[in-house]
Amino acid sequence: MKKIMKQDQDVTKQHNKQMILDIIKKQRPISRAEIAKITRMSATSIGRFVSELCEEGLIRETELTSSGVGRKAIMLDIEPGAIYTIGVDMAKKRISFGIMDFSEAIIAQHRMDHKTQDSTPEETAELICNEMEGMLKQTGIPLEKVVGIGIGMPGVINYERGIVQLSTTLEWKDVAFASLIEKRLQIKTVIDNDLKVKILSEYLYGSAKGSNKTALIGIGTGIGSALIINGEVFRGGSNSAGELGHTTLDPNGNLCECGKRGCLQTYIDENSLIMEARRVKDVSDVRQVFAAARNEERWAKEIVSRTALYLGITINNIVCMYNPDTVIVSGDLVENYREIIDLVEEHSDQVIWEPFKGKFRVIPSELKGEAIVMGAGALAMQHFAPLAGTWAEES
Amino acid sequence: MKKIMKQDQDVTKQHNKQMILDIIKKQRPISRAEIAKITRMSATSIGRFVSELCEEGLIRETELTSSGVGRKAIMLDIEPGAIYTIGVDMAKKRISFGIMDFSEAIIAQHRMDHKTQDSTPEETAELICNEMEGMLKQTGIPLEKVVGIGIGMPGVINYERGIVQLSTTLEWKDVAFASLIEKRLQIKTVIDNDLKVKILSEYLYGSAKGSNKTALIGIGTGIGSALIINGEVFRGGSNSAGELGHTTLDPNGNLCECGKRGCLQTYIDENSLIMEARRVKDVSDVRQVFAAARNEERWAKEIVSRTALYLGITINNIVCMYNPDTVIVSGDLVENYREIIDLVEEHSDQVIWEPFKGKFRVIPSELKGEAIVMGAGALAMQHFAPLAGTWAEES
Repeated sequence: MKKIMKQDQDVTKQHNKQMILDIIKKQRPISRAEIAKITRMSATSIGRFVSELCEEGLIRETELTSSGVGRKAIMLDIEPGAIYTIGVDMAKKRISFGIMDFSEAIIAQHRMDHKTQDSTPEETAELICNEMEGMLKQTGIPLEKVVGIGIGMPGVINYERGIVQLSTTLEWKDVAFASLIEKRLQIKTVIDNDLKVKILSEYLYGSAKGSNKTALIGIGTGIGSALIINGEVFRGGSNSAGELGHTTLDPNGNLCECGKRGCLQTYIDENSLIMEARRVKDVSDVRQVFAAARNEERWAKEIVSRTALYLGITINNIVCMYNPDTVIVSGDLVENYREIIDLVEEHSDQVIWEPFKGKFRVIPSELKGEAIVMGAGALAMQHFAPLAGTWAEES
Repeated sequence: MKKIMKQDQDVTKQHNKQMILDIIKKQRPISRAEIAKITRMSATSIGRFVSELCEEGLIRETELTSSGVGRKAIMLDIEPGAIYTIGVDMAKKRISFGIMDFSEAIIAQHRMDHKTQDSTPEETAELICNEMEGMLKQTGIPLEKVVGIGIGMPGVINYERGIVQLSTTLEWKDVAFASLIEKRLQIKTVIDNDLKVKILSEYLYGSAKGSNKTALIGIGTGIGSALIINGEVFRGGSNSAGELGHTTLDPNGNLCECGKRGCLQTYIDENSLIMEARRVKDVSDVRQVFAAARNEERWAKEIVSRTALYLGITINNIVCMYNPDTVIVSGDLVENYREIIDLVEEHSDQVIWEPFKGKFRVIPSELKGEAIVMGAGALAMQHFAPLAGTWAEES
């Protein structure tokens, strides 16, 4: 059943104030008159909301020469230093950090090597908190200006409760990670699956800008997917939608680390490439396979071609299930070896279902390594920035 | 970007009026006092909206002995005869009709044999219109009380524009079917993919009531799926999400009617069972295969078992992609041969990804043959009933 919520003056007021802040954020700098044109609200109402937002320190007035007539106009802009969030990208072997200001720019970055598997979750949380404190000290940002922390990590994440349900990459099960950070720093923290954070990022800042129906495939040590529709990340019943890697292709196929047979990831992720290569040559990483393929060695070319074929199948299957207008392919494997994407094109006639041909575009990730840090910062902004949630309550 | 829409008094008023109508519809009969308790609106406001709804003929007052105190109370109820919609289910060999009243009860039904493939779309539209006129005449419902028609049909349907983009079952391509009906009867018409209509129906009236994250698998002459989240049918970019049947399992697998190899439906739909059986015995339909299996013939048991295995894989793949809390299995194949669902249970350890085990339930369709007629009537109600769209505009 849809929302049962009375709409009264307070709700309406909050809605309109949030809308004005949103317009300033997206079209800054902008004049009061332009806001009036967009919203069709009265000058008096706009004036009142703008004053409130100025008093709260979220926006400021700037003087700009407007392009048309040459005379000076008072414009409104976000106050970038009003608040901050910190975005964190936890990967298998490294953790990346970024401080995001209210204008959603990353103003400081930091990266460190860390094998999460070798530490307890408590140790990792302590380490992350120390690093963040160090970054804030260096940049001179007081702790109380940080309204929230967002963390993207691989695995099945209970994002509402802040629990890592299962992460085979981090080797964690049922870890209440968000509260470890919150307790230590007294800053609200949201954690989420890395690919869900990544697609949010591509939607806000990268390849998927302007597309409201975008799917993302991430290929590296595993394979997964995510989807964003009308600005909302598609989560399914318990935030686990998009677990593409464990869809079954062949009930008698390759054995997967999950214990099932024939999971898609056993045909396409980095491990599967290495396993396949070792039938012929003793390779230690995927780089050697691609080097051999570039060197025209037939066994390696066959492996690369087969990977492209299965990437094509993956794209077909995700398009059949989600019907997006854009598919972003991302992850170490495709970002380091672009030739795979070119090869997918060659297979597309064979693997894409006819009615979908020409109905979507396949593009590489634009943000690459930055995507998760930026998306995690944005996620924290959506959750914890002032006035945030006004919209969420309504929908 | 999210909605930019000023909220003013008119919007607020429409919202609250629709909310009250909605509450009466779902909890009828209900008193003004109970509505006040739910909405926390003032008695004056509720009184005003109720008067308007009574004047418009959408609701009526009834006198009921309230259970608690024994004295009579004035209750509010929907006026079932205020308006009607007609729901139509177009299948390969038959067309079913149902007239739905404002209380969303089907008050008249009708079914006819018709092979759509043997007629032009114009002929089929004419036939459907004649049948509907006949039903209205019989029931004494004037044409002008019918606010809309909803039609569910197999295929890729452009539901916003009323166009059948591709239906291999009906053998139609790019047919503007909704406008054929609209022109002939002057009644607004919405068409949609049959499984999307079916899941709406199961959500409103059947197995999925109370579940906000339900997927549906339909298996018969083909295989497809649908998903409903928070009361909204998941449509994807162009209403083609859920095309499960053409996800690829094996690039070297069975040839599919679509021209690709190894599509899921070539392993599990009725055709594939018959093709497989014919390697051993000259069967003409799927009934013979199940009869032989029930008769303990080994070849037939193997086919049924394999079908159950692939149904298990289908369920795993849909759960991985959509992460629903409920999966409804529907369609002639599973509705006529329930033993398949029991067999799926046996395979589930082998085919369901560990983190999802125990996190969802698999249930058969409750409405069966009625589902699409009811869902199509409801779809028309959602689109064309008075005050409908008030919510839609906001979200």
